[in-house]
Amino acid sequence: MKNGMIECSVCHSKLVSPSTKAVSRAYDRHRSKVSSKQRALNVLLVVGDCMLVGLQPILVFMSKVDGKFKFSPISVNFLTEVAKVLFAIVMLLIQARRQKVGEKPLLSISTFVQAARNNVLLAVPALLYAINNYLKFTMQLYFNPATVKMLSNLKVLVIAVLLKIVMKRRFSIIQWEALALLLIGISINQLRSLPEGTSAMGLPVATGAYIYTMIFVTVPSMASVFNEYALKSQYDTSIYLQNLFLYGYGAIFNFLGILGTVIIKGPDSFDILQGHSKATILLIINNAAQGILSSFFFKYADTILKKYSSTVATIFTGIASAAMFGHTLTINFILGISVVFISMHQFFSPLSKVKDEQENGVLEMEPQNDHRFILGTGRV
Amino acid sequence: MKNGMIECSVCHSKLVSPSTKAVSRAYDRHRSKVSSKQRALNVLLVVGDCMLVGLQPILVFMSKVDGKFKFSPISVNFLTEVAKVLFAIVMLLIQARRQKVGEKPLLSISTFVQAARNNVLLAVPALLYAINNYLKFTMQLYFNPATVKMLSNLKVLVIAVLLKIVMKRRFSIIQWEALALLLIGISINQLRSLPEGTSAMGLPVATGAYIYTMIFVTVPSMASVFNEYALKSQYDTSIYLQNLFLYGYGAIFNFLGILGTVIIKGPDSFDILQGHSKATILLIINNAAQGILSSFFFKYADTILKKYSSTVATIFTGIASAAMFGHTLTINFILGISVVFISMHQFFSPLSKVKDEQENGVLEMEPQNDHRFILGTGRV
Repeated sequence: MKNGMIECSVCHSKLVSPSTKAVSRAYDRHRSKVSSKQRALNVLLVVGDCMLVGLQPILVFMSKVDGKFKFSPISVNFLTEVAKVLFAIVMLLIQARRQKVGEKPLLSISTFVQAARNNVLLAVPALLYAINNYLKFTMQLYFNPATVKMLSNLKVLVIAVLLKIVMKRRFSIIQWEALALLLIGISINQLRSLPEGTSAMGLPVATGAYIYTMIFVTVPSMASVFNEYALKSQYDTSIYLQNLFLYGYGAIFNFLGILGTVIIKGPDSFDILQGHSKATILLIINNAAQGILSSFFFKYADTILKKYSSTVATIFTGIASAAMFGHTLTINFILGISVVFISMHQFFSPLSKVKDEQENGVLEMEPQNDHRFILGTGRV
Repeated sequence: MKNGMIECSVCHSKLVSPSTKAVSRAYDRHRSKVSSKQRALNVLLVVGDCMLVGLQPILVFMSKVDGKFKFSPISVNFLTEVAKVLFAIVMLLIQARRQKVGEKPLLSISTFVQAARNNVLLAVPALLYAINNYLKFTMQLYFNPATVKMLSNLKVLVIAVLLKIVMKRRFSIIQWEALALLLIGISINQLRSLPEGTSAMGLPVATGAYIYTMIFVTVPSMASVFNEYALKSQYDTSIYLQNLFLYGYGAIFNFLGILGTVIIKGPDSFDILQGHSKATILLIINNAAQGILSSFFFKYADTILKKYSSTVATIFTGIASAAMFGHTLTINFILGISVVFISMHQFFSPLSKVKDEQENGVLEMEPQNDHRFILGTGRV
């Protein structure tokens, strides 16, 4: 037995050992059916993501009163979670109405309790996201925003490593290089925004800073990957029910955070609706929609596609704003996006996929048997 | 008959048609023998190139008197060609002495005349190099040196296109992308040296400038590729004899250039030895050595390896000067060299090679026959 494979004693074919850890088995069973639809779905997800991310700076601009935010930024996180919970409930009600006779009822208490028990893992990403929301503010005390932006780019590599560990995804060398190129490409785009005198890594060398950087990069990456893991491992649960749990936990954790702030800073900070306008409500809805779209990425595509999608969205926003406001595109921007597009082609090119004869062999042999799930082969 | 292949009417195997243009046949015959030695040779070439390129800025610094060059830059080209001719003659004499009895004499008039006739093609790169030496000066009137440096990076793509057309080299998509990454990586390194306000392409938009750019990029690329073509197509001729012709033509063309200058500017500019010192002689010897090493690259390796080698040399010079003079490495430099190294790995990785079943098939079939040469398959 080698790499979880066993050899058939009759025909010497390779089989996946039944003891191989099989967390996303339901998802993998599903996968073999839908590969043809997957492309169309990916395109839809990316286009939707690009539109929402593109709206973001416009809404942020509109939310400012005299160039400042009048509302507490902590309240935005909580209200966003609440909006997502409401959306999940509405979608669940619609789904339940459309159910045919004989289907397992979506809204029965037994279904709900069982799903809640199965999806308890969603509390992990919800907690990590809540921690991340607080970290963002702390980080801005330690680093200037340009450095924070630069450091965020490291997330893509951390995500890939976590996908390899948690989801057992395999990447080819070309794909690892493509991810490094994505990181470099985004960084080149941001070079102009760094202060002139910034040295080699643009980092203050305080010892604590390194630890903060580690945490700042790892926590949101872990949140995304565990979210993908939790959503895919219970593939049969409706995504709206999964979202209800995820955002429910999220709302609870954020509410606890607000309570903590109230205890420390006094009851004034409890007024979470203070300073909001129509524009800020649109901003919250946009945030919520991005969050919901993310969960579709994590369940039906993956975290890496989400990363590429956000990058492409940023690039298109850059090009659109240059076209609308007559900015010239800097040479950094052109070099950076060239690297990003090459990276994207290399990552998704069939040439760079991990060759996996094992999987095909196993799939052909016993299609009715459960031996055949192998987690995360170079799939997108 | 398709792509120069014919089908055997008995066994239906594919054969290369004897009418297929077979310019580098001697080289290709040689190639099949030496693939094991090729790696060692490549390493030697790259290390030598790095040392010579690394010496260059030190010698340039030493050649300056009060921060200026006292000698005519045109004379450097001519003297470099003369130095290369002298080296070729010395090497030929050494080679002739070491010849065993029975070997075709290297220094007989008949050998020389026949080789001269066969290698007449070397006049083409020699002329192109001479034109390029004059263009360099003209370019500096139209563009600032930083822009010239940036434009020079485009050469690597032009060289690849020319290799495809002239040498029938085939590149995989990953290899094309690797070449684009090389271009981008070098450009990122140079970003800091561009003037602050430089817009999108950093180019003046005068109509003439585009034509000059085209010529400036194409002429030296054509020179390199035709040089490779000419040296490899007469693979059996001694490289020193080939160099003698190449640099002989080069010296003649440069001398004609000097004569032209004399006619236009008067006899003062004829004193080609004016203003030279020991340091400038070392500079000329270094230039000559780089030229000679290039011919080894072109004959025994290729133009692309030469490009990568020069880039690596520039990178090591940058790192060495940072280490010696205590400069901090800029973030541009770090991002740029990361892209260059990824590009290099991707270009030379066996994963990215063009799969070529045809060649193997043909080689196995008739090893004693001359059908088997196919030009420039994804070889490095």
